[in-house]
Amino acid sequence: MEHLDHGPESLTDRKRRLVRQRIVEAADELFAANGFDNVSVADIAAHAEVGRTTFFRYFGDKVEVVFAHEEDILSRITRFAESEAVGPATTAAEAVAQLRPLVIAVCDQASLDIKGYALHYELIEQHVELRARDALKAQRIADELARILIGRGTAGHKAVFAGQIALACYWTARRRATSPARLSAETAAAFDQLTNL
Amino acid sequence: MEHLDHGPESLTDRKRRLVRQRIVEAADELFAANGFDNVSVADIAAHAEVGRTTFFRYFGDKVEVVFAHEEDILSRITRFAESEAVGPATTAAEAVAQLRPLVIAVCDQASLDIKGYALHYELIEQHVELRARDALKAQRIADELARILIGRGTAGHKAVFAGQIALACYWTARRRATSPARLSAETAAAFDQLTNL
Repeated sequence: MEHLDHGPESLTDRKRRLVRQRIVEAADELFAANGFDNVSVADIAAHAEVGRTTFFRYFGDKVEVVFAHEEDILSRITRFAESEAVGPATTAAEAVAQLRPLVIAVCDQASLDIKGYALHYELIEQHVELRARDALKAQRIADELARILIGRGTAGHKAVFAGQIALACYWTARRRATSPARLSAETAAAFDQLTNL
Repeated sequence: MEHLDHGPESLTDRKRRLVRQRIVEAADELFAANGFDNVSVADIAAHAEVGRTTFFRYFGDKVEVVFAHEEDILSRITRFAESEAVGPATTAAEAVAQLRPLVIAVCDQASLDIKGYALHYELIEQHVELRARDALKAQRIADELARILIGRGTAGHKAVFAGQIALACYWTARRRATSPARLSAETAAAFDQLTNL
């Protein structure tokens, strides 16, 4: 997996990352073998050889494990965006333009592993609880995008609007893309369409 | 509560509506008294004096009951929109313009009962599962709006985009509105901002 940030990783960070990865891999194996509904947090913890307490240090609940990869992507993009020297957006159009490359970067990263992406959404489609959490995660992306703009000095009301519009482009692409490989291109197309409104 | 459609109600429809209402009221009472987490479907069914089977004829799960009022609003607005003689939207801008009054009508209806609206979101904020379902319901609104446009002959790719943009205006308003009474005005303001993109 590509890293957008190449800073050195501390020993503690590395240890945390590996434990987290072990939990995710254990969960993926169990979900695939027994079905999402038949796997408990205790099962995942046991399979990953960690305690329940450790599990909950990394994930709020069983559902969160399913979105671990997306969370990684989002936090990488957020860190990248915060490291850029970009000033405040003075108009809504400028705010949306600042978000465009970030949303496309999220799409690029999310669809990098085409098979993993397909499996992820196959699992999600089968469970209303996962579809719901997926929708909530998307709202979290919009909020993060708004937060990035506000961090650059953009007015809150413009930032919130731009975050939601950027998310709308992402959802449009999710609905239109006939394959994961098309996700980024469809997102770009949706951003292009905004100028016609 | 206002009804957008004034057609006569059949006896069966009336009976169904009253049973549904009894389940919702029983659930609201139990959630308020014991907390959402401590109430089961069996509790709700017993309190509403219906069987579990009847409960599941009306609602997929306990979470769905929380969104019964929103579902009612959405299906009323949808029926209203489908009864209007409106042609296909030929541009994305026209598609969004067709959706604008529908989204504002949803906001008007949802914020009619200001106290109920506040209680609804207070409950939702306390539970990640409810926040997630709320986000999923919002996506359902976007899909319904796209479906209405497609029903009028609008091209699918335009309809999907317009539905998501309309939803972005709704979410922007949800984030910006300082009180339920401001929801519709903030939604209109967000739609106004689209022309500056």
